[in-house]
Amino acid sequence: MKPHSENITGGAVGLRDNRRMATLGLIEYRDASAEVRAVYDDIMTTRQTDYINNFWKALAHDPATLRRTWQSVKEIMAPGALDPVIKEMIYLAVSATNQCGYCIASHTVGARKAGMTDAMLSELMAVVGMANETNRLASGYQVEIDDRFKS
Amino acid sequence: MKPHSENITGGAVGLRDNRRMATLGLIEYRDASAEVRAVYDDIMTTRQTDYINNFWKALAHDPATLRRTWQSVKEIMAPGALDPVIKEMIYLAVSATNQCGYCIASHTVGARKAGMTDAMLSELMAVVGMANETNRLASGYQVEIDDRFKS
Amino acid sequence: MKPHSENITGGAVGLRDNRRMATLGLIEYRDASAEVRAVYDDIMTTRQTDYINNFWKALAHDPATLRRTWQSVKEIMAPGALDPVIKEMIYLAVSATNQCGYCIASHTVGARKAGMTDAMLSELMAVVGMANETNRLASGYQVEIDDRFKS
Amino acid sequence: MKPHSENITGGAVGLRDNRRMATLGLIEYRDASAEVRAVYDDIMTTRQTDYINNFWKALAHDPATLRRTWQSVKEIMAPGALDPVIKEMIYLAVSATNQCGYCIASHTVGARKAGMTDAMLSELMAVVGMANETNRLASGYQVEIDDRFKS
Amino acid sequence: MKPHSENITGGAVGLRDNRRMATLGLIEYRDASAEVRAVYDDIMTTRQTDYINNFWKALAHDPATLRRTWQSVKEIMAPGALDPVIKEMIYLAVSATNQCGYCIASHTVGARKAGMTDAMLSELMAVVGMANETNRLASGYQVEIDDRFKS
Amino acid sequence: MKPHSENITGGAVGLRDNRRMATLGLIEYRDASAEVRAVYDDIMTTRQTDYINNFWKALAHDPATLRRTWQSVKEIMAPGALDPVIKEMIYLAVSATNQCGYCIASHTVGARKAGMTDAMLSELMAVVGMANETNRLASGYQVEIDDRFKS
Repeated sequence: MKPHSENITGGAVGLRDNRRMATLGLIEYRDASAEVRAVYDDIMTTRQTDYINNFWKALAHDPATLRRTWQSVKEIMAPGALDPVIKEMIYLAVSATNQCGYCIASHTVGARKAGMTDAMLSELMAVVGMANETNRLASGYQVEIDDRFKS
Repeated sequence: MKPHSENITGGAVGLRDNRRMATLGLIEYRDASAEVRAVYDDIMTTRQTDYINNFWKALAHDPATLRRTWQSVKEIMAPGALDPVIKEMIYLAVSATNQCGYCIASHTVGARKAGMTDAMLSELMAVVGMANETNRLASGYQVEIDDRFKS
Repeated sequence: MKPHSENITGGAVGLRDNRRMATLGLIEYRDASAEVRAVYDDIMTTRQTDYINNFWKALAHDPATLRRTWQSVKEIMAPGALDPVIKEMIYLAVSATNQCGYCIASHTVGARKAGMTDAMLSELMAVVGMANETNRLASGYQVEIDDRFKS
Repeated sequence: MKPHSENITGGAVGLRDNRRMATLGLIEYRDASAEVRAVYDDIMTTRQTDYINNFWKALAHDPATLRRTWQSVKEIMAPGALDPVIKEMIYLAVSATNQCGYCIASHTVGARKAGMTDAMLSELMAVVGMANETNRLASGYQVEIDDRFKS
Repeated sequence: MKPHSENITGGAVGLRDNRRMATLGLIEYRDASAEVRAVYDDIMTTRQTDYINNFWKALAHDPATLRRTWQSVKEIMAPGALDPVIKEMIYLAVSATNQCGYCIASHTVGARKAGMTDAMLSELMAVVGMANETNRLASGYQVEIDDRFKS
Repeated sequence: MKPHSENITGGAVGLRDNRRMATLGLIEYRDASAEVRAVYDDIMTTRQTDYINNFWKALAHDPATLRRTWQSVKEIMAPGALDPVIKEMIYLAVSATNQCGYCIASHTVGARKAGMTDAMLSELMAVVGMANETNRLASGYQVEIDDRFKS
């Protein structure tokens, strides 16, 4: 782990092209409080990376939300009854349905890192597209729930 | 396969409790055209069941859409790079995100039939909930996509 | 116009089956203030009906929102560059996409009254379903907007 | 009020970087009809600014919608039972939920101008994220509404 | 068809009122494990009530999600830079935007308990409606974000 | 039809500005398999154009989805009970409601090509905005569906 490496701080890029970087800005490791650094360290250790992505740096202005969100994500995305790659693909399915650009980009990368192949991505998207279509056919035609589907 | 059995036609139930049953009504097997029956038969054969659920019966007023939708669902949900149970769970994840009551009910049953346990359902819902939360944190804070997430 | 007729007041129905009838309840014509009655009268005159549907009766607790919403709907849904039946179908397309049960039910009736046939409804739903599918394929695959589509 | 000042017209910026500027383009004050100018003047007077943001300039091609939308926004966002800063935050909560980039950007600025602090923004986003999560847990698990929640 | 079979009647609860009660059913206090009871106790203490609503009883089949979700809700909804009534109203705004029936019902009650008056509810809904309208006008007209709105 | 013309392949543009071009990249005609070329050819013939837009090039990595999606779109968007321009406008209404940037851009162009005037666009957007508003008022106030709206 190299907390002071360029790809963590990344400040130069931000300065260079003057892009919008989150409402409250991004907090880099070097500028972070001990409380925030502890979360960043746990993210890097858990994910075996030295990169903190913008999402966490944007949340870091609110350390309570940063900590709580990371703890929840860490707990939920851990291996369990479902493999991590399946969980990442479900995350991507939700993000595509909600049309969240940031989340689609980051979880496409996350799912691939966890083992998603191009063929798996294509099947995932086909199911996501179809589900979004039939969701509207079911509601648009006002289809009543079958008795046998009522748990 | 028993296409003329009571639980396919189910007309008595509809008469008995006078509930709303889709905008254009449901077309039962006994009342269906040859074109519609061919789709119903393929659904029953493919799914190894003698039950046609309300969704298809509601679409049957538009045979072209019934046929096209069934062919697409059949093709997409077949085993491939992803197991059918995973595909059903992705379908359920999308339906829960869109809050489609009919689809949640039917695909909960479908996913269970394909092998989803209660533990898998719980983990699925935890991921769906978390993804919906972080989707809004990412967009609400206007987080810029990391350069490394741009494919 | 018969403002005191049974199907306007409808109180007995509400009492009879004890269903939930909107957060703040429904305001019937007989119980309405002059300000609310003026809106109800305009709705009935404009739509050539003696029926006020629950939506307006629920809004009537906030006369400013009732008046503003009705004025906007009246102005927007009037004949113009688009026929009223097309406008009602667009309303239904949005409502199906958002999965708003009340709105799907009421605008299905409204569109039919304005001339929507079963064939038109079926084609409408097919387009709505397809658009919801390809919306997610486009975002899920992170497709860049073509230069020629940038106005 | 200085209707011909640079930051109202802003045409040079549009020419300089050739970005896409709304489907029908933006109508600047200097190019606007008397009807549109009257709305622009009321926006500037009401908001105590000499800046008209792109949203209104894009709507100005349809003066009836421009006028109606502004009148509705003006009426709804005025101080009442809720403070303007609370109303702006609710606007932002809806925009983040819908993932509307333009609206998140403009109402973040609007809410801050009305008094939203960084701490208030952080709490707002935490609630928005949580609500989006539990909305899906409630629907995903098909939770029945408690009798006592039926008004 | 076997109308008296176990999986149709679904146990005592199913027989009594025959409603659907969540996919995995509801876990009552008397049937709960010590771990679940601890959460139920904290909910009742924190909210000063002796009532556990269905949402928590449905989550209780997954004690980890029950605990994590409650801890998050408890932390987020506590008084801070925003009053609890404002937080409840933001929750309701999100739920109405997402059209989550359960959440609208429960948070309408929650917001009222926290002090929301009918006038506050009406203004809240007016803002929610307007924001949902202008979100689509902004995106539908492809309005570019103003430079000054880029933080 | 000129399948090898510059505006089909467009490779230079992609190289020139280094933008992100879909998760799996875009497949140009010159690089496409016979199966993909057959779909591209049918798109160009059906739409009487020599341009294949990015959406199809992004789907082309999954030829089965490319073929199925194009066949469905072709079938659904053909003239029928509804004119093609009306179908394109419904597509745009759904895309604006879902806030899909790619789809709004491409179907705005598609609808115009099919005959949508600026006046029709303005009325379309007014209806889309209004429907999105009243959808939330109906659900937010928990309005019960009128008996006469139950088909």
